[in-house]
Amino acid sequence: MSKQGLPVVDVSETVCCAPLASEPLNAGEADELAPLFKAIGDPVRLRLLSLIACHEGGEACVCDLTGAFELTAPTISHHLKVLKQAGLIGSERRGTWVYYWINPRALERLSAILAPRQALFPA
Amino acid sequence: MSKQGLPVVDVSETVCCAPLASEPLNAGEADELAPLFKAIGDPVRLRLLSLIACHEGGEACVCDLTGAFELTAPTISHHLKVLKQAGLIGSERRGTWVYYWINPRALERLSAILAPRQALFPA
Repeated sequence: MSKQGLPVVDVSETVCCAPLASEPLNAGEADELAPLFKAIGDPVRLRLLSLIACHEGGEACVCDLTGAFELTAPTISHHLKVLKQAGLIGSERRGTWVYYWINPRALERLSAILAPRQALFPA
Repeated sequence: MSKQGLPVVDVSETVCCAPLASEPLNAGEADELAPLFKAIGDPVRLRLLSLIACHEGGEACVCDLTGAFELTAPTISHHLKVLKQAGLIGSERRGTWVYYWINPRALERLSAILAPRQALFPA
């Protein structure tokens, strides 16, 4: 069977309702989820994620974010890049600035994985 | 007002119901939470946490955990130590073996922080 012939499975749906405490995570799931947790395992990135999520209109320009930190713009950009590569935020350039928004499905999925035994986001 | 006179606030309670998307995390909260996410930002530790959480009776001996991995016992012990230092699991030696259990409050707190805007664990 060719790789092209494999059905596309939206893992975000299947993992969503199978919290960590219901059945053991398999190696594939763990390999997929660990980088997302690692991406938020940094205080600056955690705050950036929160600032973006809370920003008016649900999106923030990098110019809205730098003021909260005593860090250079390139350092902030590096952390935003890590969050984007993990799929936790999206971005788009509009004119001079790049705008960022969170990916709520990704956060919801991580939240559900850590949730108590009962499914928090039933299908 | 003396420092001694300040009321004691249980941060685990206040953070529980203030998800990341409701109001920006402050630096102190982020510094406190990031190491917990970092601890589970590793596929082996994520699977260990899940194996312990799912184990019969809610606790597992290191002898119950090593079989799931192609890793040496010292490596597994190292990962368990990281999880314990982060406060995600507890442990106790009984005779020959050390037994581990998860700290459900810690997982609940991380889950709540990442949850959608509405509080998932109301007081």
